[in-house]
Amino acid sequence: MTYCVGLLLDQGLVMASDSRTNAGVDYISSYSKLHLFQPAPDRFFVLLAAGNLATNQEVLSRIRRDLDQAVNPGPSQQAPGETLLSVGYLFEAATYLGGVSLAVQNEHGPALRQAGASVDATFLLGGQIAGQSPGLYMVYAQGNWISATPETPYLQIGESKYGKPALDHIVHPGLSLDDGARVCLVSLAGTARSNLTVGPPYEVVTCPRDQLAPSKRLKLEADSEALRDLTRNWSERFRDAFYGLPRFPWEESEVAMDQAAELPPRIPS
Amino acid sequence: MTYCVGLLLDQGLVMASDSRTNAGVDYISSYSKLHLFQPAPDRFFVLLAAGNLATNQEVLSRIRRDLDQAVNPGPSQQAPGETLLSVGYLFEAATYLGGVSLAVQNEHGPALRQAGASVDATFLLGGQIAGQSPGLYMVYAQGNWISATPETPYLQIGESKYGKPALDHIVHPGLSLDDGARVCLVSLAGTARSNLTVGPPYEVVTCPRDQLAPSKRLKLEADSEALRDLTRNWSERFRDAFYGLPRFPWEESEVAMDQAAELPPRIPS
Repeated sequence: MTYCVGLLLDQGLVMASDSRTNAGVDYISSYSKLHLFQPAPDRFFVLLAAGNLATNQEVLSRIRRDLDQAVNPGPSQQAPGETLLSVGYLFEAATYLGGVSLAVQNEHGPALRQAGASVDATFLLGGQIAGQSPGLYMVYAQGNWISATPETPYLQIGESKYGKPALDHIVHPGLSLDDGARVCLVSLAGTARSNLTVGPPYEVVTCPRDQLAPSKRLKLEADSEALRDLTRNWSERFRDAFYGLPRFPWEESEVAMDQAAELPPRIPS
Repeated sequence: MTYCVGLLLDQGLVMASDSRTNAGVDYISSYSKLHLFQPAPDRFFVLLAAGNLATNQEVLSRIRRDLDQAVNPGPSQQAPGETLLSVGYLFEAATYLGGVSLAVQNEHGPALRQAGASVDATFLLGGQIAGQSPGLYMVYAQGNWISATPETPYLQIGESKYGKPALDHIVHPGLSLDDGARVCLVSLAGTARSNLTVGPPYEVVTCPRDQLAPSKRLKLEADSEALRDLTRNWSERFRDAFYGLPRFPWEESEVAMDQAAELPPRIPS
């Protein structure tokens, strides 16, 4: 499994992913799922991938080939179609990505379905084209997409349920990019604690609005001081928050009864 | 959907459930999923039900009929089989419940499968029989079961993923029954916030070891002061915990740079 999350905030984008890939529980390995494309100074794209690893890798390879052929057209090549360089709007990049994904799935789907395996892949696509706002898209396995909005400023793919409550508590469009990166790490680490198919290293990028490139790129390995610090700190703070919750009415009266029992007996006046 | 959770603690049992039932998103209603059986002074059972509501209700009706016929045998009735009154061990109650569930599913399964619906039901069974330890069992739709242990002192059925991180942070066998009830409510309310198919009223019972009956039974309605208090408090405490997490290294140096910028320029000596 996989867990990836993206935030579309007033200040820009945050994109984060785990790195665990598994085919059954006895074949677990680590692959980066966060891919950065900067084909020209006026645009950048961050791509997070979940689902069938073979589909993901071929989709990425085809996107790179399309870009390569657009930049270095051979003499006998046909005119290149859409690429991340040719799209005029971010939604066109999402549509292009969906088309590439669908083509790969159509090619390998029949053989995989015969073997009882899924060829599906889903993607988060974040980025910005100069002169336009940053955007965040989830591209479904069927090639269509939805985009993040101020009402729902985050999108998730993969094993998304365990990490959703933390996002629901914290994420709003006014969140800073650094707090956004932090809540993504809390959401990732919480998911990994509850589900073995999600695990470090965790990758996070923050992309300030109009900078047209990531400003920070972080990779937290399982044994890194920073990740241990964060998870230990979060566990302690979570427990402190819990133990500070108001008591049930009967708990207070039980304490009061205990205290009353220790008082000297009242002498009627 | 449904979300139910049970805790097997050193001090006894905590059992909790939401009350939302839905058939599609346009038929949402409220049913209690927490059922108490005290067929004799030497035993009690708490049953939480998830899955197909019709299966759940018929399973409960058959369990009650079996008990009724064991207590009031008619002249022409055949000898009663296993009941919650006849079982000698808690695991036998789990096996009996699994058998009843499977019988109901076998009766209605073919018609439901034709309609593309699921007949499945899962149960949590907690309880104690005098002279034995309290126990907590999850009975699968297939009729078999697993039990909670000190290493894994909680069991969940239904929409369990959203509420699992809170349990993973807090639950251990030494937890008090009241803290157990509180973490179940936090887990339930967090799930309801992230998923519409889980909702109040929330029911919780705490059953102290060797008391052979629940000591507290709580039902929190959606508009109750207590539930609003808990969820508001938890939201605030969750956010406080988050915003107190350690900063990224660059955030500290950025603050230092901002502060340095406000200092008067250094005069070289």
